[in-house]
Amino acid sequence: MNSTYGSDSPIAAFATTPGGGAMTLIRCSGRGAIDLAEQVFSPADKLKAAPGSTVIHGWIASNNEKKEKIDEVLVSVFRAPKSYTGEDSLEICCHGGTVSGKAVMDTLKSAGFRDALPGEFTFRSFMNGKLDLTKAESVMELVSAKTDTGRRHAVARLSGSLETEINKIKNELVNVLSGAEIYLDYSEDEVSADADEIKGMMPQKKIALDALERLKKLSASWQMERLYQEGVTVVIAGRPNAGKSSLFNSLLKEDRSIVTEIPGTTRDWIEAWTSIKGIPIRLVDTAGLRKAADSVEKIGVERSHQLLMEAQLILYLIDGAEGIVLEDRSFVAEQSKPLLLIWNKADIAPPPSMAEKVLSVSAKTGDGLNGLYTAMEEELVRNSQGKEFLEVSSVSVGTARQKGLVDDACTALEEALAMDDKEEPLDLIAPLLREAVNSLGEITGEVSTADILEEMFSRFCVGK
Amino acid sequence: MNSTYGSDSPIAAFATTPGGGAMTLIRCSGRGAIDLAEQVFSPADKLKAAPGSTVIHGWIASNNEKKEKIDEVLVSVFRAPKSYTGEDSLEICCHGGTVSGKAVMDTLKSAGFRDALPGEFTFRSFMNGKLDLTKAESVMELVSAKTDTGRRHAVARLSGSLETEINKIKNELVNVLSGAEIYLDYSEDEVSADADEIKGMMPQKKIALDALERLKKLSASWQMERLYQEGVTVVIAGRPNAGKSSLFNSLLKEDRSIVTEIPGTTRDWIEAWTSIKGIPIRLVDTAGLRKAADSVEKIGVERSHQLLMEAQLILYLIDGAEGIVLEDRSFVAEQSKPLLLIWNKADIAPPPSMAEKVLSVSAKTGDGLNGLYTAMEEELVRNSQGKEFLEVSSVSVGTARQKGLVDDACTALEEALAMDDKEEPLDLIAPLLREAVNSLGEITGEVSTADILEEMFSRFCVGK
Repeated sequence: MNSTYGSDSPIAAFATTPGGGAMTLIRCSGRGAIDLAEQVFSPADKLKAAPGSTVIHGWIASNNEKKEKIDEVLVSVFRAPKSYTGEDSLEICCHGGTVSGKAVMDTLKSAGFRDALPGEFTFRSFMNGKLDLTKAESVMELVSAKTDTGRRHAVARLSGSLETEINKIKNELVNVLSGAEIYLDYSEDEVSADADEIKGMMPQKKIALDALERLKKLSASWQMERLYQEGVTVVIAGRPNAGKSSLFNSLLKEDRSIVTEIPGTTRDWIEAWTSIKGIPIRLVDTAGLRKAADSVEKIGVERSHQLLMEAQLILYLIDGAEGIVLEDRSFVAEQSKPLLLIWNKADIAPPPSMAEKVLSVSAKTGDGLNGLYTAMEEELVRNSQGKEFLEVSSVSVGTARQKGLVDDACTALEEALAMDDKEEPLDLIAPLLREAVNSLGEITGEVSTADILEEMFSRFCVGK
Repeated sequence: MNSTYGSDSPIAAFATTPGGGAMTLIRCSGRGAIDLAEQVFSPADKLKAAPGSTVIHGWIASNNEKKEKIDEVLVSVFRAPKSYTGEDSLEICCHGGTVSGKAVMDTLKSAGFRDALPGEFTFRSFMNGKLDLTKAESVMELVSAKTDTGRRHAVARLSGSLETEINKIKNELVNVLSGAEIYLDYSEDEVSADADEIKGMMPQKKIALDALERLKKLSASWQMERLYQEGVTVVIAGRPNAGKSSLFNSLLKEDRSIVTEIPGTTRDWIEAWTSIKGIPIRLVDTAGLRKAADSVEKIGVERSHQLLMEAQLILYLIDGAEGIVLEDRSFVAEQSKPLLLIWNKADIAPPPSMAEKVLSVSAKTGDGLNGLYTAMEEELVRNSQGKEFLEVSSVSVGTARQKGLVDDACTALEEALAMDDKEEPLDLIAPLLREAVNSLGEITGEVSTADILEEMFSRFCVGK
């Protein structure tokens, strides 16, 4: 049995997390998958007769003469090529909990299914022309999305937004390239009646320049995509009693659903994941550092320094009751990182008018928190854009791989344009255009190698 | 909108544990559920046209004029009455992870679905005559099964083994009862041509006695069922260095899949779940107790005592290298609990022939462990049976509710038989027979009240 990505042997995998849920979903695919499943499905002839895209009810039964009932199941039957993978496939919905799914899986294996490799279903889907690589990658982006904004961006790519844009740009470049190549082919002969349209590269330079601009936009979109996918570290700093822990807790309240508090037992700071305006935030409260510093001053200072180094944004809290003191000023002056100056306890001590731009909040009453969220979003999005705002809704790349290939295409295209500016001969320019076209082809998978594909899909989760 | 068990309003629930899996399954059911889903499914007419028991591919889209794509999904469509619940139903398979499922669920709710109550799908299934109460309960038994033996027993009931047995017994009692009632009706008139067959209760007493025996067997089966469902606490005791921790670890190796070690940080003993011969075992190692006793002798002794009180079985280890000492003998003599005497380190010091029955093992080499498993199973099953062995494969009850009702039926039937023995009049015996029949009807749900049903189904998990 061939258990590499290239094969079409029958595979099976849990598609849902095993555990206490009401149901467990097992996915099967491969050549002969339905025939194989008949050995362990009762009544077998019901499965044999099932048309594609139908659901049948029955039992998984042991693969021996005893035909012991293992679990009552619903089986969705898909017949090639009308399935996710393009192969014969089944989705077996069995009872949840920790035991039933395992027993069904063991039975499937006894019939000849093997464990699917990570991403193997989507790999097969790609190989069978069901989706391009940008869509395939968006599947994993969706599964690992941390916030609803991340999901929305991934869904856009799953709908084909990136594939369409890449193919559009690529087709334009192919036109430019074929213009150049036809010119090369015919330049020494007489030129046909179409001569007006194929005066070398220059007449289509505008198209190439437009393509370059769109590629640069795509490249720039990665910064923000990464922001929404991976999130950022935001560190809360400030003097003792400035209200760091209160602010920490207030920011967590915003979206408790994705918060995972890490117990502070072995650390002297607290951190948790939350999200603000759709951006996943690793929020770090350095509150505990000061206490540790009492006994082991040096270690405390080092850790604080390290946490601040990891921060993409610092929320520096001023104790409104005491006002800005020298220590606050020197901290802020020393920081090179993006920093928001926050005047806390505004409910009891509103900020005076000052030279510094401060955000007035009360962690206690919640006043000013919305303003803080907006300021944080602005700061983080602005930083991710190198001071340029981009429309969030525009087409964007979703992975470092895509970004790298867009950059490769940009580089080749820029070089081609530069050479054209210098009126270099077209036979030197054409290979660069070809290179740009190939890079774009790699993004969608039109051009690909087995190594790259395996490397890419092996990072998927099992069951996808 | 009516959100009590009695309604048929459209409900939705996660059927799989949300988390890092590749897919998330959402279950919907209720009157008009498919029409409602059309509002958030694209293309809507594909869903409208879908015959029952088919799978369609499409998108969940927001319930507004924007029709924003939420997630790409496969939807299994079931049309009443051909569904699990007997109502129009859908199973929506969306992308996994933490975000997509939630977004799809929010969208379904915006269309008018409400959160399903615990067990509401199975409740509706019961109300619509799709399954009886023994099958309904076996669904939850399956989901919460801890071992494969537990699963097998639940599957037998899901296949109808208990329902069939109960109905058989009930029908026999109904015959006995109608015999008695006809006799009552006609006894003062002339008796018809059938007179020979309806000579009061006595002619059918054999049937009633047989029914009683079968009910008693069912009642007795609960002890063992509970053993496989709930498991038992097994405590490892013995003098320091007898090898308690080694044995603990060896026993865990048997089935690592269901082991959850509880970190010993806040306790001075270690415990973990494992399974031996299909019996879930809460295994407790008292190894740490001795150490605690050094400093706080009293607390250590108290805890040890408490753990031993919780034990259904004690594994008492003898340090083979030192042989049985006075402390061992006095511990064993003081115990009233079932106890297995285990001679450890048999690899370096085999047990001498002794008066006591000892199990010779080596926790280090693994020798003798199989014998220990068999001895543990025998001891636990024997204890659960009150010294009587029952066939594991025979029909058994699966819940305390069923057991209680079987006992009620037994009591009424025994009383009826006793009265018949004393030749009491049939009009006093008939109501007792009626009571027994009713109790059996309650087991399958033929006789039921809203309160009892709600109480029962509310203990199910959501999505079932």
